[in-house]
Amino acid sequence: MKKFLDKDFLLSSETAKTLYHNHAAKMPIIDYHCHIEAKEIAENIAFENIARLWLSGDHYKWRLMRANGAAEDFITGKAPDREKFQKWAQTLQKAIGNPLYHWSHLELQRYFGYDGVLNEATAQEIWDLCNKKLQGADMTAREIIKKSNVKLICTTNDPSDNLKWHKQIKEDSSFNVQVLPAWRPDNIMAIEKKPLFLEYIEQLSMVSDVEINSFADLKNALIKRLDFFVEMGTKASDLGLDTIAYLPAPEEEIEKIFAAKLEGKEPCCEDILKYRTALTLFLARQYYKRGWVMELHIACKRDNNTRAYKALGPNTGYDCIGKFNSAAHLADFLNDLEKTNELPKTIVYSLNPADDDVINTIANCFHQQDVLSKVQQGSAWWFNDHKSGMLKQMTAFASTGLLSAFIGMLTDSRSFLSYTRHEYFRRLLCDLIGGWVENGEYPNDPAILSKMVEDISYNNTVKFFGFEV
Amino acid sequence: MKKFLDKDFLLSSETAKTLYHNHAAKMPIIDYHCHIEAKEIAENIAFENIARLWLSGDHYKWRLMRANGAAEDFITGKAPDREKFQKWAQTLQKAIGNPLYHWSHLELQRYFGYDGVLNEATAQEIWDLCNKKLQGADMTAREIIKKSNVKLICTTNDPSDNLKWHKQIKEDSSFNVQVLPAWRPDNIMAIEKKPLFLEYIEQLSMVSDVEINSFADLKNALIKRLDFFVEMGTKASDLGLDTIAYLPAPEEEIEKIFAAKLEGKEPCCEDILKYRTALTLFLARQYYKRGWVMELHIACKRDNNTRAYKALGPNTGYDCIGKFNSAAHLADFLNDLEKTNELPKTIVYSLNPADDDVINTIANCFHQQDVLSKVQQGSAWWFNDHKSGMLKQMTAFASTGLLSAFIGMLTDSRSFLSYTRHEYFRRLLCDLIGGWVENGEYPNDPAILSKMVEDISYNNTVKFFGFEV
Amino acid sequence: MKKFLDKDFLLSSETAKTLYHNHAAKMPIIDYHCHIEAKEIAENIAFENIARLWLSGDHYKWRLMRANGAAEDFITGKAPDREKFQKWAQTLQKAIGNPLYHWSHLELQRYFGYDGVLNEATAQEIWDLCNKKLQGADMTAREIIKKSNVKLICTTNDPSDNLKWHKQIKEDSSFNVQVLPAWRPDNIMAIEKKPLFLEYIEQLSMVSDVEINSFADLKNALIKRLDFFVEMGTKASDLGLDTIAYLPAPEEEIEKIFAAKLEGKEPCCEDILKYRTALTLFLARQYYKRGWVMELHIACKRDNNTRAYKALGPNTGYDCIGKFNSAAHLADFLNDLEKTNELPKTIVYSLNPADDDVINTIANCFHQQDVLSKVQQGSAWWFNDHKSGMLKQMTAFASTGLLSAFIGMLTDSRSFLSYTRHEYFRRLLCDLIGGWVENGEYPNDPAILSKMVEDISYNNTVKFFGFEV
Repeated sequence: MKKFLDKDFLLSSETAKTLYHNHAAKMPIIDYHCHIEAKEIAENIAFENIARLWLSGDHYKWRLMRANGAAEDFITGKAPDREKFQKWAQTLQKAIGNPLYHWSHLELQRYFGYDGVLNEATAQEIWDLCNKKLQGADMTAREIIKKSNVKLICTTNDPSDNLKWHKQIKEDSSFNVQVLPAWRPDNIMAIEKKPLFLEYIEQLSMVSDVEINSFADLKNALIKRLDFFVEMGTKASDLGLDTIAYLPAPEEEIEKIFAAKLEGKEPCCEDILKYRTALTLFLARQYYKRGWVMELHIACKRDNNTRAYKALGPNTGYDCIGKFNSAAHLADFLNDLEKTNELPKTIVYSLNPADDDVINTIANCFHQQDVLSKVQQGSAWWFNDHKSGMLKQMTAFASTGLLSAFIGMLTDSRSFLSYTRHEYFRRLLCDLIGGWVENGEYPNDPAILSKMVEDISYNNTVKFFGFEV
Repeated sequence: MKKFLDKDFLLSSETAKTLYHNHAAKMPIIDYHCHIEAKEIAENIAFENIARLWLSGDHYKWRLMRANGAAEDFITGKAPDREKFQKWAQTLQKAIGNPLYHWSHLELQRYFGYDGVLNEATAQEIWDLCNKKLQGADMTAREIIKKSNVKLICTTNDPSDNLKWHKQIKEDSSFNVQVLPAWRPDNIMAIEKKPLFLEYIEQLSMVSDVEINSFADLKNALIKRLDFFVEMGTKASDLGLDTIAYLPAPEEEIEKIFAAKLEGKEPCCEDILKYRTALTLFLARQYYKRGWVMELHIACKRDNNTRAYKALGPNTGYDCIGKFNSAAHLADFLNDLEKTNELPKTIVYSLNPADDDVINTIANCFHQQDVLSKVQQGSAWWFNDHKSGMLKQMTAFASTGLLSAFIGMLTDSRSFLSYTRHEYFRRLLCDLIGGWVENGEYPNDPAILSKMVEDISYNNTVKFFGFEV
Repeated sequence: MKKFLDKDFLLSSETAKTLYHNHAAKMPIIDYHCHIEAKEIAENIAFENIARLWLSGDHYKWRLMRANGAAEDFITGKAPDREKFQKWAQTLQKAIGNPLYHWSHLELQRYFGYDGVLNEATAQEIWDLCNKKLQGADMTAREIIKKSNVKLICTTNDPSDNLKWHKQIKEDSSFNVQVLPAWRPDNIMAIEKKPLFLEYIEQLSMVSDVEINSFADLKNALIKRLDFFVEMGTKASDLGLDTIAYLPAPEEEIEKIFAAKLEGKEPCCEDILKYRTALTLFLARQYYKRGWVMELHIACKRDNNTRAYKALGPNTGYDCIGKFNSAAHLADFLNDLEKTNELPKTIVYSLNPADDDVINTIANCFHQQDVLSKVQQGSAWWFNDHKSGMLKQMTAFASTGLLSAFIGMLTDSRSFLSYTRHEYFRRLLCDLIGGWVENGEYPNDPAILSKMVEDISYNNTVKFFGFEV
């Protein structure tokens, strides 16, 4: 029996161990998509206790505590931190086979030097240990980032963001990890949201100094913001879509839809999709022009529990896998851009794992000379970000394309301890590749294999985004 | 090489063996959903021969015999029992990788003490052996149930059922296994069925002593029946849906649809869905009020072979996996109930295994304080009730939720020998968990692990349904 | 560590090795669906060099080279063959986990006696070796076929094909491998293609000597061609469908749709589906009458990259997995034929692996006395034709039906070296079965197991199609 979470965790062959310890583990981290606030890095925040650090913003954990029947008071409510932590310990010990079990213990080992097990009985001991460590100067946001060997972080930012914290970090010579904004224009896509959209248009107008009375104006305003983001070092964009709908319409029609909205008329279904299609196509062409990468996050159905939404708001653990409309829409959307040679590098994530093969086969229709797998499926996302989901995603990627060209992992996290997810990914990657080699399915060629693992862990990402590190 | 079906069948590690033999195997059985007739238990039927016992009602076996090209005469027809059994033996030996291969041999071992292999050559020997054993007083319906360590059975009953056999069993002090009715209102959902629906309304009217001239009347009649079922000990309801459609409409509209039907007008598509939505919401709220569990069986397309249907009727082996409309409908349906805090505990089964992850992520949006995973995906159902299907279902459950909270297995069977399916499930459960432990993915903590396995095998079901055992 | 691609490649147990080497490997090959040109066999073509043989027509390889960022000039363009080969070597070494990695090296071993590894460094050595071997008289099309132990090949032919090359091969006593035409009427299905369809009608009219002024005429013309194909030994038909739509309409309506098309009016969506439904039903009944097998290839979305399509045409590596409309259409289509007892033996392939279970459960609703699994899912197709895809397909087949009845593998290829795909399949089959036996999930009964493996490798196909070999 292997010891729980020992140094060869998830590495079941000698080749896997060698590839991981000698190669993957040594590569730095580029976290090209996450939800960390630049402000917290700029201010180099510290953490009062392990409950605040772990439980104050992580809806993955909240969700699991609810599955265990915990009262909301101990999750997002006013219960004392120590009691919340106890509820979490009670939950976690039941979470066999769940990635949170692995991530939490990896974090305890890597950041707190604790190699025991968190459960009801040990919660007090761990509470004491972690909180003591958290008082140390080496456990601030920046120190955690540095000790995690992170070279570059892309945060997630609205086009109207003034990016002042990014600027501050950049100008601070005491911290040399790059923190770049990534462009996420979800607000300007949401034409169906009643007052919010118009309020947002106003905000965008103000920050871009462009009066927005037409779709053309909107595009001008966005171009100014895009250029500002370029100045700030942006290389990545991101878009969250419940489904991808490709419904192109003439520019005049989009202008009419937009004008009607400005006049307070709510658009109907098809018009919403037409507007979104036009805007997405416009933005994608702008990304191409600027050499940005386009990330598409598809098939999430959000905020399914109305009572909880009213009480807690969005991103509180009430989302589910939605519908990936059909292959046709994604393929036709990409083709529209390809036709005029304006397709940016693209990473597609679907929350529905049943789409893996569809997305891989679409991606491989849109490559470009001198780019390694220009369109590719992203690593297993959110609800799929676990051992079997990651192995499935990588196996599908390899079976239908070039795994060596994969740009690999990101945290997608709000927490500073989540860099262990890169470790988790790299261990699984090495185990998969190592297993193939040991089973005679690929030659034992150390030079090729080590390069492959290093590329997927780090180098491919640097090249794909064009980061300067 | 492991011996076929030895005592460590499907248990590939020491931890798995310990968990199974010392814990899972010792737990009693709650069979909370099956298609056994209470009458057969009340009358304590005996079985003429193994062909009658195995082949007279099991459409799983019929289907496989047809795949082997057997003539219908040897399946559901008039061929002599011995010849039918021979055809079954010829079929079974070809069924490598099929759960019927395992279940049949588990049944031969556990109930007939035969640990050889059924095939063409051994069929006569097994025929003789089984038929001799079946003459014994220990092989009646009740004795089989008792020796299977079954504590409680939920049958499947129409709301109009008088439940006289359940009453008789309850009053019979010589048999202390609980046999409770479960409520299955499929007939009253089927407003699209031309004469049958109106006939059924009449039947329901009679048995409830409520004149049914409106949807409101129908609800009153159903409430009377629900209360009667409560008196009879019911804790579980069940509903079979080809797809789940959530299409709410005002009460007046439902009344109109219902009134039209009473007048002999057939409802159109949307109206059918509106009626079903209204009725399901009404029933779910009634279940919540009574503390019942709601089971939803979704995505079956039934009776696909018209010639066979005309000859043999329903439930004869001509069904297939259908369409699970979309995540949106299920999530919105559950949310409608959640909004008013009237969502009962719910178990969702989809016949399409591609839906596992979607359903798990929906389920985890609707939990409740002090209930262990109030909404959860049920164990691999029907066409998915095999080794890879069960492992996939449990892995998905664990990856996105709390496996320790899983209520586990049921037989869904018409046969008294199917309790070995619980054994089959428990072996796979222990193998999965044991494998994780041996691979260093969960600590080797015998107290936590044994509790987990015992809970999933038995305790969780008792608590979830509130059975008094 | 196992040596790469040694004699026990993919065979991980002793039982697997015995089954493969002593049974599967010894069976001849029936390649019942491929895209080889009969002309090339008739002319017994030879190959100038390994680049021509491997890269001149194989869009699987082109696609992978594009994923590696190769310029089109080195793929389908005018770059020298040697340079194309180098680009291929550079690509292949990155293709860990991809079936092309295995297939290419199997081909190098089996046909060129090279048991090293193809990569950038070895490309020259392999180029020299292969090209030398290709000069030999034993490396023509026919010799490759013969040394691959192929007994029978079905090519893919349009109904208007004069089949002169098939006739020539048949009459050539120096070559005794059967090369039979298979009927693929995709052109006559494509009523939505503007000028092409009418041109095709003319062509069909000419070759059948039937004036086509109505749908009835069309059917008569097709009957003449069907009868001609029967004379030429055809036993198999094939149909490529983006999705399967079952939308039956009265004959008069089909006549109107067809008449309108003849008059130059383009049919709308529903009419296209009605025409296709009528034609498919007609053809299927004709197949039944002639004892042919019907192959359905569903859920491919073709030619997704418009720029590439304009430059290179169809079948150049720009296809993706599409939509399998819904279980309902396929089941209802088969049932329509079953109702009148005119359902031919049918093999269903879906490009979307998420459909495996749906298709298997549909197939098992439509069997027939004295036929082994009359309707069945075909082996993992195209993008799924890899290790995990094949194992998934076979596991699903076994879990829901009778694996022993499976008709197994085909190449679906344009290349004469692809017979190693049968070897690849057989190894995986034996490994799967061997694994079950070693794990105690099926008895170690050599007689039954060896027959099972031989049947799936060869015998089942012979019987299913009724080939005379």
